[in-house]
Amino acid sequence: MNKKMTSLLLAATFSSGLLMAQSITEDFKPSRFNQPGQAYPQVNSQGYARFRVHAPAADSVKVSLGLGGRGGTVLTKGTDGFFSGTTEGPMDEGFHYYNLTVNGGRFNDPGALNFFGSTRWESGIEIPAHDQDFYALKDVPHGQVSQILFPSKSTQTSRRAYVYTPPGYSKDLNSRYPVLYLQHGWGEDETAWTNQGLAHLIMDNLIAEGKIKPFIIVMTYGMTNEIKWGRIRDFKIDSFETVLVKELIPYIDAHFRTKADQPHRAMAGLSMGGMETKMVTLANPNVFSHYALLSGGTYAPADIKDKSKVKLIFLSCGSKENPEGVKKAADELKAAGFNSVSYVSPNTAHEFQTWRRSLKELAPLLFTK
Amino acid sequence: MNKKMTSLLLAATFSSGLLMAQSITEDFKPSRFNQPGQAYPQVNSQGYARFRVHAPAADSVKVSLGLGGRGGTVLTKGTDGFFSGTTEGPMDEGFHYYNLTVNGGRFNDPGALNFFGSTRWESGIEIPAHDQDFYALKDVPHGQVSQILFPSKSTQTSRRAYVYTPPGYSKDLNSRYPVLYLQHGWGEDETAWTNQGLAHLIMDNLIAEGKIKPFIIVMTYGMTNEIKWGRIRDFKIDSFETVLVKELIPYIDAHFRTKADQPHRAMAGLSMGGMETKMVTLANPNVFSHYALLSGGTYAPADIKDKSKVKLIFLSCGSKENPEGVKKAADELKAAGFNSVSYVSPNTAHEFQTWRRSLKELAPLLFTK
Repeated sequence: MNKKMTSLLLAATFSSGLLMAQSITEDFKPSRFNQPGQAYPQVNSQGYARFRVHAPAADSVKVSLGLGGRGGTVLTKGTDGFFSGTTEGPMDEGFHYYNLTVNGGRFNDPGALNFFGSTRWESGIEIPAHDQDFYALKDVPHGQVSQILFPSKSTQTSRRAYVYTPPGYSKDLNSRYPVLYLQHGWGEDETAWTNQGLAHLIMDNLIAEGKIKPFIIVMTYGMTNEIKWGRIRDFKIDSFETVLVKELIPYIDAHFRTKADQPHRAMAGLSMGGMETKMVTLANPNVFSHYALLSGGTYAPADIKDKSKVKLIFLSCGSKENPEGVKKAADELKAAGFNSVSYVSPNTAHEFQTWRRSLKELAPLLFTK
Repeated sequence: MNKKMTSLLLAATFSSGLLMAQSITEDFKPSRFNQPGQAYPQVNSQGYARFRVHAPAADSVKVSLGLGGRGGTVLTKGTDGFFSGTTEGPMDEGFHYYNLTVNGGRFNDPGALNFFGSTRWESGIEIPAHDQDFYALKDVPHGQVSQILFPSKSTQTSRRAYVYTPPGYSKDLNSRYPVLYLQHGWGEDETAWTNQGLAHLIMDNLIAEGKIKPFIIVMTYGMTNEIKWGRIRDFKIDSFETVLVKELIPYIDAHFRTKADQPHRAMAGLSMGGMETKMVTLANPNVFSHYALLSGGTYAPADIKDKSKVKLIFLSCGSKENPEGVKKAADELKAAGFNSVSYVSPNTAHEFQTWRRSLKELAPLLFTK
């Protein structure tokens, strides 16, 4: 759907609330990311979300999610003490953060699991996607997601990272694997790529289908230097770069069976993690060979001093972001002799469905040479 | 402190609120389990907890935690839109679940991390304990906590477990390790022993101090059969026993470097997990050799058919539970020729500080022969 058509549809939506309400398909089911046994929030096959929250003495409950993820949804109080309501329209496929405002205070929805975003644990909801099969939990061999605590002299603490090791890693003790260092976005942390992104299931499924050769993924916290959480204007790359390159990578190479060299090391990041990826890869051409920015900017040919050290540049975003910019940058890199690939996620914005799909597209391109 | 003295102190506390308020030490600090950067909730050196919640249009905010973990604390609304208040008295050392009631609706505290208990994700707070050093995050070699997804034919899904592997596991690929299967309590899940219990840090510290020989810990969900979450009256051991003994143990032995025999396999559980441990160990004498019930009942000598198969029986509880019952059962087992040990956690009740301490006492007794 192009932008003009989207605008026309939105106009129609807003001018015919009654018609729209009648057209909602009543096949609502609990969201994939609900707390165990919780019936609400629910989602339907069209992408609508429906909420139901118990707050008998409250005057107002509002959900931060609305049409297309924007605005909000005001819930209506029933005589049973529950507030309920449905989004005004369908939302983008995939994962969305949200919260409730209850009489002016911001709380999470007791029905939903929590996910770390915007520097806090927020409620999350999953809108079923037409392509959700690639991140479904299937009866295939599963890898492990291991929490490690690695020593960091530069920050004087033990820092946490998660390491995805593919199925087979624990069985064939002679195999060594390439490594992708994969960064979250602003306000998120090292839990995001598995909790929200389901990166481990994406990998398990790609490996089971024989679409990729197994590799390790390492995820750590990327907002290392901030004094006060979440102040991106204070962000400096130095402290994160030190933790990643001088501390984490040596720890990983010492504690996991990696192929510990530049040709077998990739870095990727979403949003702010893309900015970090660009800065760290350009400053460390002998450490990483494969670069990927997911909704996280672009490289220009002039950025890279030694073309021979770069095996892949992958640039992606959602169709509702800046697809032309991403495609143009990839084209210019290709014209300059780089192995560059662009990917645009259909009908998604700056959100995790874009990044899940990006990982699925990126993975088969890594470490193939 | 005996029960009589506790009662006297409680009476004094209730009759002299003003005196008590004056005696609160103003050394409040954010709880260890706060969300990143959040100033509240706070705890002081005496065990008081102080809360501060933004809800400008709310009429009432109550915290479920009160004196000694009982009752609740009603917060007072300030002109700045924040509700605040301090518990009426000090609470037991260690971890406590809690939630907020905001105008009649139950929500979590936006300042605190969430922990799975009572079949839902709840807020958690940590009261500093005099012995908190044994579960502190220290600059010692750390093991890994790995999430695995193992196939379960009996329940027709992939099930989740967490596996603690000790420091060194990933380096010396020739070593094999004994395994402790460690169960949570009612309404908790496989995340409890690390999130609330900090079992991985307890192990890392014990190993660093040379107090135990390294072993693996496996934690999975123990309320396998329930149709509706949290209905303990519907609990049957069969489905959990099948998952544990027929599916999980073979998977662990195939995917981790275990000593895969009865002498090197232990089972322990807290509360409901103790009940499960008792039932599963008695029904599977050729699978487990070391048994531990933490606030989870006792064994009688007559329960055990073949004494020679049991290497250790460990029974524990908090001093505010049933210490005499636990000690008496251990004595009777000892008199009957069993290697039995009892442990009573001082000044704690049916709560995680009891179980953290129990794990610390249990670990050095495991797999020593």
